[in-house]
Order: sequence, then structure tokens, then C-alpha cells
Amino acid sequence: MESNTSQWSATEQQIAREALSKAYTKETETLIAEIRQKASQINDINDIWSLHDYLSTKRYDIDQKYDDRDSTPIFVLAQLIQEGWLDPDDLTGLTPDKRAKVAALARMK
Amino acid sequence: MESNTSQWSATEQQIAREALSKAYTKETETLIAEIRQKASQINDINDIWSLHDYLSTKRYDIDQKYDDRDSTPIFVLAQLIQEGWLDPDDLTGLTPDKRAKVAALARMK
Repeated sequence: MESNTSQWSATEQQIAREALSKAYTKETETLIAEIRQKASQINDINDIWSLHDYLSTKRYDIDQKYDDRDSTPIFVLAQLIQEGWLDPDDLTGLTPDKRAKVAALARMK
Repeated sequence: MESNTSQWSATEQQIAREALSKAYTKETETLIAEIRQKASQINDINDIWSLHDYLSTKRYDIDQKYDDRDSTPIFVLAQLIQEGWLDPDDLTGLTPDKRAKVAALARMK
């Protein structure tokens, strides 16, 4: 989506990067707490394989979501708001049309 | 290795199955303890991904090793002795030539 990059000012790109970084920290800290909790409840080998499956899914999901090669992160910002990792106020400084697009996408299921 | 199956009596096959089952229990119980320990030392997201890598390797290794489609388990019995999951005495009841083969293989690196 290189063709849209120019529609994002340097300041907006910085705001988006910071929002992504904030969401990444929140999401990974939550994952760490969750894994510690799951690990404390392991009783048999099937619990180990379930933990492995869970980590595989989460790693794929997080790697995809925070891949910073997407320079127009409207979709990922909307997804992060939908998932609760970002607050719409974290996007203060983006143009109103971008914020409106993000908000509209975040309301979709 | 279907052609060798007939060289294993029903009793020997049963002994091998029981030895594998015993080793599987020991190895998976050790893995459970290890994962609980590793999980208690998780500090950041890189520790989580290391845990995931470790589980991927262990799962592949264990799945391969205890795949019971191999009906002449000389190699896996030797490997399990080498790794400390089985004791040579667990193979009491196999013919001397089989035990000798397993012991010889177990001494190889």
C-alpha cells in the first residue's frame, strides 16, 4: 500500500507508530501474565500441548498485527481498538477523516 | 520395517511397549516440571517466544520418538537409554541379542 504513504504526514506516522508500540506493550504484557497463569495450572502433558498451540496462535497473530511494513495502519489501529489494546484517544493528532475511518472500522464485527 | 516384526514375540512386543510407555511418562513428567520452572522465570516477551521455540522442538522430538508405528523399536529403545529415560533392566525379557544390540547402540554418540 505504498501509494497511500504520502497521505500520512511524518507526525501522523509517528503518532501511529507510538500507538502501535503502546498497544504492543499492553498486549504482550497481558500475554506474559496469561502464560504464567496457564503454566501454573498445568497438570498433564495435554495441558503442555494446549499451551504450545495457544502460543503458536498468539505468536502468529502478534507477528502479523505489528508487522510495521504496512505504512497505512488504518486496519490494524481499528483492530487494536476493537480488541481493547488501544483507546481512540491514543490517535489524537491524526486527521479527523482518518480517526473517523478507524472508529467506523473498529465498530464492525 | 514390517519385515522384522515376526522376529519379535508377542511377549517381547509387550515388553517394548511397556518400556516405551514408562519412558514416555518419565520424559513428559520431566517436561512438565521444566515448563513450570521456565514459566516462573518469564520476564519479557522474548522469554515467551523462547518458551514457544522450546515447546515446538520438544513436541516434534517426542511425537517422533514415541510414534508406535515402528514395530522394531531397537533404535528408539537405545535412544531412550542414552537419554536416561530408560534403564537397560527395563528390557528384561527381550532376547539377549536384542538387548546387546540396544546396549551397543546406546553407547554410540
